[in-house]
Amino acid sequence: MRTVDIILKKRMGKELRENEIEFLIQGYNNGEIPDYQMSAFAMAVYFKGMTSQETAYLTNSIISSGDTIDLSMIEGIKIDKHSTGGVGDTTTLVLAPLVAAAGAPVAKMSGRGLGHTGGTLDKLEAIPGFKIDLNKEEFIDIVNTTKAAVMGQTAKLAPADGKLYSLRDVTATVDSIPLIASSIMSKKLAAGADGIVLDVKTGDGAFMKTKEDSFRLAQEMVGIGTHLNKETVAFITDMDQPLGEAIGNSLEVIEAIETLKGRGPKDLLELCLELGAQMLVIAKIYESAGEAKVRLQELIDDGSAIEKLKQFIAAQGGNPEVVNDYHLLPTAKEKLVVCSDVCGYVSKIESEGLGTLAMILGAGRAKKSDPIDHGVGIVIHKKVGDEVTQGEKVATLYVNTIVNEEDLINECLNKFTFSGEKTKKPKLIYGLVTKEGIKKY
Amino acid sequence: MRTVDIILKKRMGKELRENEIEFLIQGYNNGEIPDYQMSAFAMAVYFKGMTSQETAYLTNSIISSGDTIDLSMIEGIKIDKHSTGGVGDTTTLVLAPLVAAAGAPVAKMSGRGLGHTGGTLDKLEAIPGFKIDLNKEEFIDIVNTTKAAVMGQTAKLAPADGKLYSLRDVTATVDSIPLIASSIMSKKLAAGADGIVLDVKTGDGAFMKTKEDSFRLAQEMVGIGTHLNKETVAFITDMDQPLGEAIGNSLEVIEAIETLKGRGPKDLLELCLELGAQMLVIAKIYESAGEAKVRLQELIDDGSAIEKLKQFIAAQGGNPEVVNDYHLLPTAKEKLVVCSDVCGYVSKIESEGLGTLAMILGAGRAKKSDPIDHGVGIVIHKKVGDEVTQGEKVATLYVNTIVNEEDLINECLNKFTFSGEKTKKPKLIYGLVTKEGIKKY
Repeated sequence: MRTVDIILKKRMGKELRENEIEFLIQGYNNGEIPDYQMSAFAMAVYFKGMTSQETAYLTNSIISSGDTIDLSMIEGIKIDKHSTGGVGDTTTLVLAPLVAAAGAPVAKMSGRGLGHTGGTLDKLEAIPGFKIDLNKEEFIDIVNTTKAAVMGQTAKLAPADGKLYSLRDVTATVDSIPLIASSIMSKKLAAGADGIVLDVKTGDGAFMKTKEDSFRLAQEMVGIGTHLNKETVAFITDMDQPLGEAIGNSLEVIEAIETLKGRGPKDLLELCLELGAQMLVIAKIYESAGEAKVRLQELIDDGSAIEKLKQFIAAQGGNPEVVNDYHLLPTAKEKLVVCSDVCGYVSKIESEGLGTLAMILGAGRAKKSDPIDHGVGIVIHKKVGDEVTQGEKVATLYVNTIVNEEDLINECLNKFTFSGEKTKKPKLIYGLVTKEGIKKY
Repeated sequence: MRTVDIILKKRMGKELRENEIEFLIQGYNNGEIPDYQMSAFAMAVYFKGMTSQETAYLTNSIISSGDTIDLSMIEGIKIDKHSTGGVGDTTTLVLAPLVAAAGAPVAKMSGRGLGHTGGTLDKLEAIPGFKIDLNKEEFIDIVNTTKAAVMGQTAKLAPADGKLYSLRDVTATVDSIPLIASSIMSKKLAAGADGIVLDVKTGDGAFMKTKEDSFRLAQEMVGIGTHLNKETVAFITDMDQPLGEAIGNSLEVIEAIETLKGRGPKDLLELCLELGAQMLVIAKIYESAGEAKVRLQELIDDGSAIEKLKQFIAAQGGNPEVVNDYHLLPTAKEKLVVCSDVCGYVSKIESEGLGTLAMILGAGRAKKSDPIDHGVGIVIHKKVGDEVTQGEKVATLYVNTIVNEEDLINECLNKFTFSGEKTKKPKLIYGLVTKEGIKKY
């Protein structure tokens, strides 16, 4: 078998066989196939796509390139949840304890933030003492005792994905749906999930800017799950404005706590209930999403959810008292209030712009090696469709270093567009893709 | 400027600017841009193409990557002729002395054969003493004295082309028309030609298998010439059967001598007259191709052409007596006669198959480092459309090593297809592309 023939076959739009894809990925992973052949292959995939069968073979080959985590020591059906990344996406912090409180084991590997998007590990590390570097035994132990644990992904999982992603990043081959789908799914499946609930973000602040691409990515990932016998469902949800109100690590921890206490932003709660309900259905705890949603709301109302969060934090070495005293979290030295200069309605919020601004304040990283300031960030008080009067507060900036206060405030205000006419509130959820098909919301 | 942005721009089908192409090629040539970015770029070009302006910029950048030859010390307009490669293509050996005899300086760089196609340098080296390693001064001196010289291309011309071609060869990006066109034209223009007559071979034994691709390649190359102010015309000629009758180095030298003596195969003569006439028109020796053709035929008839060949051979250290005594050339030990086993007409000859068979006999190379046996080869006695009777000779194999005589004869015979019905002789020339447009024949 010659690599050049496999590239040619894909370039001609033909379907590759399992052994051809395996040859390519294993050869690339062990250094026998050079970067220059893999990048040409990736570009051919960009133009010619892959069938769902090919994408499943690719995912399996990437999984085989490294270790896989055996979660069989954990009782029950282990469901992972993954978001494709957005601004102010605090769902994991809410869902891990919430779903665990409902009886499903949550054994989750998470990542760090990059660019305008945040990462769950960074948010958890805002909690004093919280340890994300668990070994496999600790991780399984904690899930067996408290039903929830979140740890950093070890490099040994799906190493071919890391190598391939770095290559795609510098060869303009990142935005290929089958390559994105296999990248995400290989990491999730190598981490031992029995089933996966995906949250494909769509819009300005998301990786996928159009609904069409988002549905295609969702379908591709559900297809991989189906081919590999791991039940997978995917929501397509809005990222044309930030989710919830908080952007930044401590701020999002507080927002998650508030949500688990029943006082969080409506959109964040709604999305968590939808995602959580699907997790419980796949975990076979409830038969219908409707039942599961009712139960999740009860767990918030009766205090079980917040209690589970405290257990979860304590089990990973964090101080559970943060739940009652937000001053225990890192906080910014100064607050800058951003007010509207007009009367009207918020017609648009640039999510990516706000995410990037939070990053510049120190809440995120421009490159992987940058440090993070857990205290800083942005809280938005008005969302798309909300009415504002002149001088009314639309956002608050939490900052530690100010170069020019006025510039900063203006920059934040510029991310908001106002209109004299009433603007409809955008949909939160656009659809759900399951192996049965697409359900549009 | 970032390479990844240039790749992305091409992937999106946008036209690149001159400085972007220059950045890419110079960076690649000096090692700053890695192979893996260039191969992704080449694959994007395969799918999205290039405008003729982009292709001209690319050609210029490749030329700038190395030395260029200054032929201004040679009086007159220097015209190069280039064939895209075929089987039995002996035109350069005929044209160099023929056009020189008509008064146009021929300063030509040629290449070696690879695979089923032969190379002019290998053919010339069949002549005892013939030296193709000339330095620039010797080369120019010989052209000024005898009007014709042929030398090997030095590696310093268009080095980015060699590097890029090696990369394309292993990344399934060879067959991109703009990349092929810029590769050919950059070498020709770096070699100092003022004008170029191209012979784009089309069909089974050619690099371009379809007429459509051949016309596209011809147009692309003429476009480059026009953009760079070097008059360029391109013939599209048949390679569905070998040109002339001889395949193999000594055998083709003999065929060229016979043609210059007025006794060569009709198709080879006709093509040489057409190509030569265009060379003389571009060199401004004659105003019309018609006039020029008449003159070229006269030069053959009155012995000037064969006399010029002797001068040309002698000037480069070869023994001019080969012209009168073919035994001075390397010859094969044995001849195997291949006879038809049916009555009928030759309906097809597999050029590539015959070229490959000649290569296996030793006339060509499977890989660049293989040695060549100048004496061996194939002479075909019947061409497409010719009538044959059972037992009549269709080809003669000239061999030095025979493994199995019967197998060899059968393999050669298998390259011929016979039909009971009369078959039309194929066209030799399909068209001529000039800057004014396409003229179909």
